[in-house]
Amino acid sequence: MRLLMINPNMTEAMTGPMARVAQDLAGDAAEIVALTAAQGFPYISSRAEAQIAGAHVLEMIADHQDSVDAVIVAAFGDPGLVAARELFNLPVVGMAEAAIMTAAMLGDRFSVVTFSPHMARWYTDCVRQTGLEARFTGVRCPKVAPDSVDNVATALRGDLIDLVGLATSADGADVVILGGAPLAGLAKEMASEVDGLLIDPIAAATAQAMSLVRLAPAYGQRVARPAAKPSKGLSPALASIIAGERA
Amino acid sequence: MRLLMINPNMTEAMTGPMARVAQDLAGDAAEIVALTAAQGFPYISSRAEAQIAGAHVLEMIADHQDSVDAVIVAAFGDPGLVAARELFNLPVVGMAEAAIMTAAMLGDRFSVVTFSPHMARWYTDCVRQTGLEARFTGVRCPKVAPDSVDNVATALRGDLIDLVGLATSADGADVVILGGAPLAGLAKEMASEVDGLLIDPIAAATAQAMSLVRLAPAYGQRVARPAAKPSKGLSPALASIIAGERA
Amino acid sequence: MRLLMINPNMTEAMTGPMARVAQDLAGDAAEIVALTAAQGFPYISSRAEAQIAGAHVLEMIADHQDSVDAVIVAAFGDPGLVAARELFNLPVVGMAEAAIMTAAMLGDRFSVVTFSPHMARWYTDCVRQTGLEARFTGVRCPKVAPDSVDNVATALRGDLIDLVGLATSADGADVVILGGAPLAGLAKEMASEVDGLLIDPIAAATAQAMSLVRLAPAYGQRVARPAAKPSKGLSPALASIIAGERA
Amino acid sequence: MRLLMINPNMTEAMTGPMARVAQDLAGDAAEIVALTAAQGFPYISSRAEAQIAGAHVLEMIADHQDSVDAVIVAAFGDPGLVAARELFNLPVVGMAEAAIMTAAMLGDRFSVVTFSPHMARWYTDCVRQTGLEARFTGVRCPKVAPDSVDNVATALRGDLIDLVGLATSADGADVVILGGAPLAGLAKEMASEVDGLLIDPIAAATAQAMSLVRLAPAYGQRVARPAAKPSKGLSPALASIIAGERA
Amino acid sequence: MRLLMINPNMTEAMTGPMARVAQDLAGDAAEIVALTAAQGFPYISSRAEAQIAGAHVLEMIADHQDSVDAVIVAAFGDPGLVAARELFNLPVVGMAEAAIMTAAMLGDRFSVVTFSPHMARWYTDCVRQTGLEARFTGVRCPKVAPDSVDNVATALRGDLIDLVGLATSADGADVVILGGAPLAGLAKEMASEVDGLLIDPIAAATAQAMSLVRLAPAYGQRVARPAAKPSKGLSPALASIIAGERA
Amino acid sequence: MRLLMINPNMTEAMTGPMARVAQDLAGDAAEIVALTAAQGFPYISSRAEAQIAGAHVLEMIADHQDSVDAVIVAAFGDPGLVAARELFNLPVVGMAEAAIMTAAMLGDRFSVVTFSPHMARWYTDCVRQTGLEARFTGVRCPKVAPDSVDNVATALRGDLIDLVGLATSADGADVVILGGAPLAGLAKEMASEVDGLLIDPIAAATAQAMSLVRLAPAYGQRVARPAAKPSKGLSPALASIIAGERA
Repeated sequence: MRLLMINPNMTEAMTGPMARVAQDLAGDAAEIVALTAAQGFPYISSRAEAQIAGAHVLEMIADHQDSVDAVIVAAFGDPGLVAARELFNLPVVGMAEAAIMTAAMLGDRFSVVTFSPHMARWYTDCVRQTGLEARFTGVRCPKVAPDSVDNVATALRGDLIDLVGLATSADGADVVILGGAPLAGLAKEMASEVDGLLIDPIAAATAQAMSLVRLAPAYGQRVARPAAKPSKGLSPALASIIAGERA
Repeated sequence: MRLLMINPNMTEAMTGPMARVAQDLAGDAAEIVALTAAQGFPYISSRAEAQIAGAHVLEMIADHQDSVDAVIVAAFGDPGLVAARELFNLPVVGMAEAAIMTAAMLGDRFSVVTFSPHMARWYTDCVRQTGLEARFTGVRCPKVAPDSVDNVATALRGDLIDLVGLATSADGADVVILGGAPLAGLAKEMASEVDGLLIDPIAAATAQAMSLVRLAPAYGQRVARPAAKPSKGLSPALASIIAGERA
Repeated sequence: MRLLMINPNMTEAMTGPMARVAQDLAGDAAEIVALTAAQGFPYISSRAEAQIAGAHVLEMIADHQDSVDAVIVAAFGDPGLVAARELFNLPVVGMAEAAIMTAAMLGDRFSVVTFSPHMARWYTDCVRQTGLEARFTGVRCPKVAPDSVDNVATALRGDLIDLVGLATSADGADVVILGGAPLAGLAKEMASEVDGLLIDPIAAATAQAMSLVRLAPAYGQRVARPAAKPSKGLSPALASIIAGERA
Repeated sequence: MRLLMINPNMTEAMTGPMARVAQDLAGDAAEIVALTAAQGFPYISSRAEAQIAGAHVLEMIADHQDSVDAVIVAAFGDPGLVAARELFNLPVVGMAEAAIMTAAMLGDRFSVVTFSPHMARWYTDCVRQTGLEARFTGVRCPKVAPDSVDNVATALRGDLIDLVGLATSADGADVVILGGAPLAGLAKEMASEVDGLLIDPIAAATAQAMSLVRLAPAYGQRVARPAAKPSKGLSPALASIIAGERA
Repeated sequence: MRLLMINPNMTEAMTGPMARVAQDLAGDAAEIVALTAAQGFPYISSRAEAQIAGAHVLEMIADHQDSVDAVIVAAFGDPGLVAARELFNLPVVGMAEAAIMTAAMLGDRFSVVTFSPHMARWYTDCVRQTGLEARFTGVRCPKVAPDSVDNVATALRGDLIDLVGLATSADGADVVILGGAPLAGLAKEMASEVDGLLIDPIAAATAQAMSLVRLAPAYGQRVARPAAKPSKGLSPALASIIAGERA
Repeated sequence: MRLLMINPNMTEAMTGPMARVAQDLAGDAAEIVALTAAQGFPYISSRAEAQIAGAHVLEMIADHQDSVDAVIVAAFGDPGLVAARELFNLPVVGMAEAAIMTAAMLGDRFSVVTFSPHMARWYTDCVRQTGLEARFTGVRCPKVAPDSVDNVATALRGDLIDLVGLATSADGADVVILGGAPLAGLAKEMASEVDGLLIDPIAAATAQAMSLVRLAPAYGQRVARPAAKPSKGLSPALASIIAGERA
């Protein structure tokens, strides 16, 4: 199967590591087709940015859906996920949602550990969005934001291990999600140094995308699909899907 | 005061009636500056459409914020509301949120009556978004969608009165929100024919915008504002705000 | 329009400052008619006191409703609000509810800062009452209660600024409600010294009362109004309303 | 032990039957001291009436607390319960709360069956107040209110049996609360004719009051008790308790 | 009446003290028949252990139900409670549920204080199970687990008093449940040394069992009872009940 | 990888079809090792039966865990799931939980359609257990239970298609879970005849087990694992795990 991994952030340097984690997880069972946003922002970290980037995600899916079996939205806030799921006839997986759902199937309580306080609230909102807040023990993050997100995985490695320790021992989490694209790959590499089970969101999203493709849901005439309509200012592919000219 | 009323739908024919309701409510106390989306869709009725239209709303606000005191997003799903509130230094009011909050200050239980089953779920989600579902008695709407939204207010008048009756007597609502831009103005016109208190979302949004301007919140250095960053593909005004070049 | 501002506390010294804040907010658009409870307690700070004071509030409204367009219950716990809303044919606004609803329209998360730990739980209950606890970041207050409530606004000014700082930076509140009648007017005066948006409950209640009057809900035959019945021990005006002799 | 059963309704004709059910449940283990409100309303059926009657309940408890071991508030909406529990140094049990808590200890799901649609919403609020709505299957009641509450237990007997049947078979309730003072005693008399377990609120409240007395909670210096303060317009006994002159 | 008190733990040394607390509470009004599990674990402290012990509880009830009027499951996690309530025709009370429900009838907010951090999460789950988490202020316990549970009541007495103090003053609990079988009897003995009301779960469970027996629910043909069926590996008595050969 | 599929029901005739669905889903990527309970019940349909069967599940896992990579509990109520997840060092997937989590990743709203009213409440409880009730549109099932579960998939085929239609059109579900082991395989076979996406719980559980194995969580020293302890009456393998003699 082929999985389209969309990085809604414009930072190519993030796409590669995430794609490697995804391909590593998939092995021979799936081919990861990685795509980086050509518009938007270097790194999405707000609702405003997600509103805009989510619209770009829809265009990116529309342009590539015919050649893939499922889509992975590879940014923690899942920009465009709900919209995409409503619109397209293939499984669309969000990095945050997949990580949260997976965590909830590995243990009773889960936590998010990330590299910046700026994201803490949004991650909490992501959990609330899924409905699993009752099993969520909260976000642990450094008190101050790093100057750059380029090398947080290495620069903050020790801090992140300590935060995972707090999440498990003080907060009582069984499972800890390492949140944020810049931490891709860290979970596997860190696993032996912490107690509690670590989740790599991009790996979880890849595994969930593979699950959904295996289940082969039959996208026929769906009840909730919006009525076909004209539009202005959209990419041709997205416009034609919304116009009902093609699925 | 000047209030920017943005119709995220491209249908000019909706903007006029909504602006009249808004200006009628405001009287001499505020001037309504009405704007119709130049991009997007004739009528937003899905999450996918709201994702895209919400991004346009941000650009429209960025282009006009300097000449107004507050913004009204005049489409029931409040496209772009959360994003706009995070980004801009003036009050931004959503038609759905304002209607729901206002209903909750007039009575114990409230309902939404609208003209099409297609919107029922989304309205429920709007209520959930505010956190007030415990006081929500549900959506009442016709079993089938109308062929056109152009004249639903007159074509379905009798049905809507019956639905309000069910919302109050069968569902126990004290207050009924008439949901959807095409019903602008109907609440006032219908008030004497129903029991229960009717809410016109655009009137409620206008009243709430006026309240927030009166309260004159001091938008100084805000904690939750996202960090300044470059972007690609945005309108100049929005890009410069997100780049932190201006508030 | 004329707005009846009822102070359910017997302390005249509180009524004046609150009325000034309310009139200042209303400007020429509304006349504030202030009333201080003649029975009850100097300062309501418990459920037991609110039970009793709320009954007095109903009598005060019954005595004055014919000469006003809306009512503001000017004590943070909103004593008698739900009861009044059920009984009277004009909008009745509560100071706590109005502050909370307004905060939720200005930002994503809100907090309450007040001057005494004795009120912390009750404020939490007020938020829960509205259904907005998911957006509530909690109450911040001094560890010990002040000896007197007379001059807390000045005596604790520095502490309150620090508490607002904790509410925004540590708790992640976008909006902070300054809770309790003795803090009337402080929000406006303090706004430039804090980040986060401050809400003055009496100002918010006044703005909301004006909104509801503008919306002119048509109180006709309402479904939920209790059946007319005789009573004993009530003031004549309240008794006649409950007896259905007049609306 | 002696249990003070307060009927906050002024209808003596209700007090007798409720007292008999209570004494019958208590047998020799407790003496029921029944009291009927001298002020207020013939039958409380609204929030407004409960606001006023609840204040009278506090005075009635203050006048009699020294001669009893616990108090039963014998009206379904539990007027004054939260306030009384905060104020007095003995257990205070509410008819609604006791019925709901007892139902939740007898089965997984419970329902309320009552004699009038006017009370349906309020009963739902009572359940929400306790926090047990997730186990609540709703209220079943006749479509129209009876002309009089005097003889509903006999006049509506057949209807009530049918409603209990719907509550258990259609709604899936294991336990059914027969709500409203006028139905006192009916549960026991009807038990053999329905499936599902029936709860008589006054019997449940009596049993719970006896439990709490047996547990003999040590009311010492309590954290949450409101500070002593003067008052105006209260009965001498209540005023002296609130003034802290006596417990 | 006769009450079967089942200790699902195999530790005889726990059964005696719990039975004494129960008999002391019941006085002449009920006879406590105490039973200790012959299989399972010395002390249940996990979901896995409760899964197994709960099955034993069902067998123990089946063997003795004919000679008793109600059953008390005397381990804090209430192993087997929901299952037993579904299966047997007499009231079955859980120590945790009874303590929680009783606490909620004595005050507005309640807490659990216990002797080991290992149980903290499970107690939180017990509260969530009842639906009363909104009134729950959390668990207070020592940072480290004791080496043995044999004498925690005496060994940790001082610590427990401090923890109760934190639960009431810092967390705002009105009522504190002393959680865990090893603390049986401590509440009564400690009551005068703390503020806040203490609940002894085994005493509360006994009082609630007596209440339910007094209410004499009529277990007739119940809707939710599972259909009769064969089984393998169960005790004869339990097998015959599940087979529908006897109630 | 090897996946242990445990049928906690004693009915061999159910195990085969479920194993075929599981193996069909897994293809060459995983080997399904199917096991049928040797004790317990022909078909688990109550909490009491799940309490007992769940204990057997723990023994079955303990006996076979060393030769497999993950475990699937193949009965809708997930008997023993929470307990097993706490105890064993490999992923344990429940059929209900996996179906629900998968449904929530395919659409906004989901429903359960099953073959008997007896299971409706329990399925609702399963959803509540996961925390996803806000996205749950309820259970649809025939009004009466079938005489036998042997051939419900064929006997009720038409009814089930109608129920799926109601779940999607009337209830607004995007995704429908076909609940209950006897319906294994039906989703795939029925997919083209319904709108809405169908979930086969055993297929979903298999896919989720494969995902979790791919993610290879590092079960090291886990925080929440219960302390080692002796036991009586357990199978040797389970006893030795609980005794901490082996992981």
